[in-house]
Amino acid sequence: MGTLIKGKPVADKIKEDIKAEVKELRAKGTIPKLSIIRVGADPGDISYERGALKVMSELDIDVQVNALPENITQEEFVDFLKKVNSDSSVHGILIFRPLPKQLDENVIKYVIDANKDVDCFSPLNVAKVFEGDESGFPPCTPAAVMEMLKYYNVELKGKRAVVIGRSMIVGKPVSMMLLKEHATVTICHSRTQNLPQVASEADVLVVGIGRAKMVNSEYVKDGAVVIDVGINVDEDGKLCGDADTEDCARKASLITPVPGGVGSVTTSVLAKQVIKACKLQTGSC
Amino acid sequence: MGTLIKGKPVADKIKEDIKAEVKELRAKGTIPKLSIIRVGADPGDISYERGALKVMSELDIDVQVNALPENITQEEFVDFLKKVNSDSSVHGILIFRPLPKQLDENVIKYVIDANKDVDCFSPLNVAKVFEGDESGFPPCTPAAVMEMLKYYNVELKGKRAVVIGRSMIVGKPVSMMLLKEHATVTICHSRTQNLPQVASEADVLVVGIGRAKMVNSEYVKDGAVVIDVGINVDEDGKLCGDADTEDCARKASLITPVPGGVGSVTTSVLAKQVIKACKLQTGSC
Repeated sequence: MGTLIKGKPVADKIKEDIKAEVKELRAKGTIPKLSIIRVGADPGDISYERGALKVMSELDIDVQVNALPENITQEEFVDFLKKVNSDSSVHGILIFRPLPKQLDENVIKYVIDANKDVDCFSPLNVAKVFEGDESGFPPCTPAAVMEMLKYYNVELKGKRAVVIGRSMIVGKPVSMMLLKEHATVTICHSRTQNLPQVASEADVLVVGIGRAKMVNSEYVKDGAVVIDVGINVDEDGKLCGDADTEDCARKASLITPVPGGVGSVTTSVLAKQVIKACKLQTGSC
Repeated sequence: MGTLIKGKPVADKIKEDIKAEVKELRAKGTIPKLSIIRVGADPGDISYERGALKVMSELDIDVQVNALPENITQEEFVDFLKKVNSDSSVHGILIFRPLPKQLDENVIKYVIDANKDVDCFSPLNVAKVFEGDESGFPPCTPAAVMEMLKYYNVELKGKRAVVIGRSMIVGKPVSMMLLKEHATVTICHSRTQNLPQVASEADVLVVGIGRAKMVNSEYVKDGAVVIDVGINVDEDGKLCGDADTEDCARKASLITPVPGGVGSVTTSVLAKQVIKACKLQTGSC
């Protein structure tokens, strides 16, 4: 029976490190600050925002929440973003996506200041993730996956990693991050043939497809590590992952639960990236 | 015994299509133009330049060769590049890399106009390759690989592709382009364990590692397609690929030779990208 590896101790460790850094920054007169830009009031956004506010407050990082009207025009949004870009008191910017239809993400992504872009919206940060250049900001969820693997001492060098999902939010960036750690990486998706067989080649299996409990023990090699990035609601209205945790745990050595796994690390990663941005901008690193 | 698939018919087909497009552009008074920026006189650069000049002349595409002194300073180079960026008669820019040490590619890549960047130097084009956004310019070599696969009707959807090599010139971009065509993609490299075994899972094997004849028939599944991107010199001073062509052909269904394979398609792809850039900039598409 595999061990459940939880996100909380990982988040706690990240926060402990950040606390010391915030203290140092504040001692020098720098107040780290995150600006959240939310258009409308999507319940998912609000819920994430609440979590982020809690973590930032715990860490003594200032947050400015900008709740913009659902019907804001492209021009108004871009003007607003430019103001936040040039506000030197703001070090990190998080824009909730997807944005409403009238706002063109393919234009806006070029407007956000890459140095403040703590969730990888700017193509300059996207390119850095692809290149394995760690000076930028990867998206928080794949970064949280990597923090989990590091905290639980999962060996990656030379190991086979299989990623199910090829989104720009999880699958592709986490593949590049695993590659950077010298894993041999296979990227699977909806068109993959014999998916359970391919998945069961993995020493490390990362699942991010958004289908409740799709991955069962057939997908898991004996002793594999399973990282479940999915957050879904099952038929009983309960939160669940993309993996059937209990069934997979019969073969996995380590497996992340949902809830309480990767998802509980992302806001701490966000805080870590705000501090990184703050140090870059204030020349403290 | 596998069939050798040559680059020439692929290049001929691409050139045929371009000729018609150039004729149309010229009829409207637009003269497509490539600007090559070469620092110093590296023999590899000169050889590629000669090939490019020949193809562009055949296709009636103007070329401006800028041979800059080996000891040019960063400031002088950046000033020069900015002039080429803003020259409206130039539609495509090719900068030979690597640049000499005094020139910082990590600065220059942000200077080149992404709309004229026909060989994927700009991070904006790098990000597009990663995202699968075909409005940009991928590097010419992986694009040539995809042209070969398309011309020879190699099915990719749902198939297993293995890429050996994780460079930004070949391995990573070709992996993303194969993924875009719905292949299940595995990326291998120097740290991969049991490389011949992993490679032999491939329906399509792409090799770009820069080691003469490293890949032999042990790496090849019966009936696989082998695309060899390597250009090396063997112990007899002859050009050869990363694969031992003759040995691999015992098991492959299709295999590209070196020379005469992928390498003979890249300058035609370059021309294709110059025309794409020209049409984008002149609003002809």
